[in-house]
Amino acid sequence: MAAAAEKQGDGVCERLKQACPEDWGAYTGHAFVRGLGDGSLAEPCFRWYLAQDYLFLIHFARAYALAAFKSDNLDDLRQATATLDALINSEMQLHLKYCAGWGLSEGEMAALPEAEQNLAYTRYVLERGLAGDLLDLLVALAPCVLGYGEIGRALLADPSTRLEDNPYLDWIEVYGGGEYQEVAAAARAQLERVARARLGDDPSASPRWPALAATFRSATRLEVGFWDMGLAPPAAFGGA
Amino acid sequence: MAAAAEKQGDGVCERLKQACPEDWGAYTGHAFVRGLGDGSLAEPCFRWYLAQDYLFLIHFARAYALAAFKSDNLDDLRQATATLDALINSEMQLHLKYCAGWGLSEGEMAALPEAEQNLAYTRYVLERGLAGDLLDLLVALAPCVLGYGEIGRALLADPSTRLEDNPYLDWIEVYGGGEYQEVAAAARAQLERVARARLGDDPSASPRWPALAATFRSATRLEVGFWDMGLAPPAAFGGA
Amino acid sequence: MAAAAEKQGDGVCERLKQACPEDWGAYTGHAFVRGLGDGSLAEPCFRWYLAQDYLFLIHFARAYALAAFKSDNLDDLRQATATLDALINSEMQLHLKYCAGWGLSEGEMAALPEAEQNLAYTRYVLERGLAGDLLDLLVALAPCVLGYGEIGRALLADPSTRLEDNPYLDWIEVYGGGEYQEVAAAARAQLERVARARLGDDPSASPRWPALAATFRSATRLEVGFWDMGLAPPAAFGGA
Amino acid sequence: MAAAAEKQGDGVCERLKQACPEDWGAYTGHAFVRGLGDGSLAEPCFRWYLAQDYLFLIHFARAYALAAFKSDNLDDLRQATATLDALINSEMQLHLKYCAGWGLSEGEMAALPEAEQNLAYTRYVLERGLAGDLLDLLVALAPCVLGYGEIGRALLADPSTRLEDNPYLDWIEVYGGGEYQEVAAAARAQLERVARARLGDDPSASPRWPALAATFRSATRLEVGFWDMGLAPPAAFGGA
Repeated sequence: MAAAAEKQGDGVCERLKQACPEDWGAYTGHAFVRGLGDGSLAEPCFRWYLAQDYLFLIHFARAYALAAFKSDNLDDLRQATATLDALINSEMQLHLKYCAGWGLSEGEMAALPEAEQNLAYTRYVLERGLAGDLLDLLVALAPCVLGYGEIGRALLADPSTRLEDNPYLDWIEVYGGGEYQEVAAAARAQLERVARARLGDDPSASPRWPALAATFRSATRLEVGFWDMGLAPPAAFGGA
Repeated sequence: MAAAAEKQGDGVCERLKQACPEDWGAYTGHAFVRGLGDGSLAEPCFRWYLAQDYLFLIHFARAYALAAFKSDNLDDLRQATATLDALINSEMQLHLKYCAGWGLSEGEMAALPEAEQNLAYTRYVLERGLAGDLLDLLVALAPCVLGYGEIGRALLADPSTRLEDNPYLDWIEVYGGGEYQEVAAAARAQLERVARARLGDDPSASPRWPALAATFRSATRLEVGFWDMGLAPPAAFGGA
Repeated sequence: MAAAAEKQGDGVCERLKQACPEDWGAYTGHAFVRGLGDGSLAEPCFRWYLAQDYLFLIHFARAYALAAFKSDNLDDLRQATATLDALINSEMQLHLKYCAGWGLSEGEMAALPEAEQNLAYTRYVLERGLAGDLLDLLVALAPCVLGYGEIGRALLADPSTRLEDNPYLDWIEVYGGGEYQEVAAAARAQLERVARARLGDDPSASPRWPALAATFRSATRLEVGFWDMGLAPPAAFGGA
Repeated sequence: MAAAAEKQGDGVCERLKQACPEDWGAYTGHAFVRGLGDGSLAEPCFRWYLAQDYLFLIHFARAYALAAFKSDNLDDLRQATATLDALINSEMQLHLKYCAGWGLSEGEMAALPEAEQNLAYTRYVLERGLAGDLLDLLVALAPCVLGYGEIGRALLADPSTRLEDNPYLDWIEVYGGGEYQEVAAAARAQLERVARARLGDDPSASPRWPALAATFRSATRLEVGFWDMGLAPPAAFGGA
């Protein structure tokens, strides 16, 4: 049902994006993203982004642990546990290998202070999840998972994306690739399911909708801030 | 609107009670309650109940603090803060004075271990509030506030209630009296407001309703357990 | 170091047990446990216990999810995630198979109301973890993991345990067996590590110790309540 | 004892500040603060700061509600409730009146999006409190309460502070004045008490100290970010 709804453009995720089209566009079409696509992004920016992303992933994993705690049925508990396990035991390991290729060691990254935009984003998501219920938490998490899937897919499909000699091609291929697209699809399906279980078959008609849309928009803006951060590496990372 | 809805018997609270009529009846018509009404309750039972109620109030206050934290607007934040403040600075003081009249000192009560039924109830409410959102928490809190108001009012109105030489008359007059009835009415109004803000104008038609009704029923059964506990004081309180 | 400390009897777990020897003895030497050992436990008691244990495991898994959220370093996050994953994807599956052998289906167990002693225990642990920090949570979880390990090992080692025609022998072999003993050892090691990281090398000299010992004792008493529950199955389970 | 300890410069608050002297100096001696002192701060900066501070206070009040929930004794519960009540029913009302004098209505401020630096700070504090225990939360709250007290007192005592025709004199007098100094002293005393109850008489010797000092430092840096935000009002507030 959720899949069918998506096709018709009226899935929960589509409606959330449609409620903040400018912010969503600012996120998925950010200068950082365009710099990945044409390979023009300055290396210090990417390395700074990668290092902060390492710190981000730890709190993102904690957010899925929180989702597991907040689950009120075994399906949600299993789905959140699977995502948590994948983040900790697979994605973080891949990320570390990838970072090593860019000259970043785990010790170095673990010792970095979190940039304010990084901290703002992760703590917003965690606090939203603690103050609200599982649905509030999943909506706060959605821009990251769904957005990265959308960005990766769009870059791969875009004929203007530089495929040769693009130092960021492997990043694009990871997020545009089949494995990550499945992760994003599972997250999308869980959000649809949890939303409909609480809001019914016409989620955006629920009186809770404006608050959920506001959460989604805030998290999307915090993703924009994360890209902004990437464009402004500190001196220690070769920034101005 | 909420008041009007109540009159027509379709307020959120009415619907929650109608979803578990046997449990609600077992709670509001418990042998402990009847023993208060006709004055036949054994004194050790009442003293044991009072002492456990002291410990209960601390966690109940914490639950309203949690409601304040979970509020997403100033009205709810103020209402929860007012209830918390009243519990800490007024109700607990009255309770202590009242307990002193029954020979129970604060030190003595604070040193008691919580009875399992007491602990089960308060931790259930707190955990429900933390795992869910403000509405889940207020529904878990509702049986206590509303039930005591209903019990007090019913005992006062019941011609078979013994008014002379009933050692429990002041308890009945507190919960049946105007001041407590106002507290219960404010709690009921907040629950109506928060429920309608999340579920719309026909709350029991929301897909969330079964889960909320289950929470209300669990908390009601835990109130039954609390009265059961009262009827079984330990030897140190003069029990068998 | 933790292992060495344990050998000398001054590990955190040993000290916690020594702080409530009577409660610990009432738990590990409970009539339910003795009935498992000599095979005399009535079948309705065991089936009722198994069914409630299914509901228990869900909340126990949620508690490890909470521990993952509350972790402030990757080691603790990984350890809690591993336990959560093992509970959800291995222990619960084994439990379901085992229950099926006793004629209990997942649907049947999922539909049961939680017994009050069950609910009291799990909500106590979860709430303690939310109100306190990771150490408070791990201490509240400790009586279950460590106690089952100790009970299983003791039953296996006890010459008076009936090994032939004991319907509960597989239960004893699971908890006394190597795999579960490793789980318990890992939980014990994590508790030692987290405790020493917060309390220093002489944990019971810390001013936090009395509160931690009180938490451990409360959880131990709630385990006693769980066995008590097992001995009193409802009529639907063949109880009196 | 706490007061005596303070005098000797070895109170918990003093030690926390001494653990991050540069950050503490950057906060208490920020250009925004100097602009308040000599009256040179541009009005758009101050109005923007005030409006964001309104949003800040709501979440700050929620943090004290959280502290009330996390309290494990009546003293801490009462202290946190008193602060929450004062914030909601006194400080916020004063703030609103004061803002009205600067042409800012409650409706206007409530409709503003939170600036990222504002959101980062409040969510950091709340999440720290939820992941940790009461001490972690109070340490995260400390830079705000203590810093404002210190800033107000220092500005009042500084001969170079402009007292005539300084549009910000009333702000200085509020935070440097006796009433706020008492609030700060009560917060400091509670932090001392809670810290010593968990860490003992030499708090900075506890293995928990580095984590607490890191929390204090992060919150202090987030205060610096808040002043930075004040210096960069958006166009709608008359910024560049």
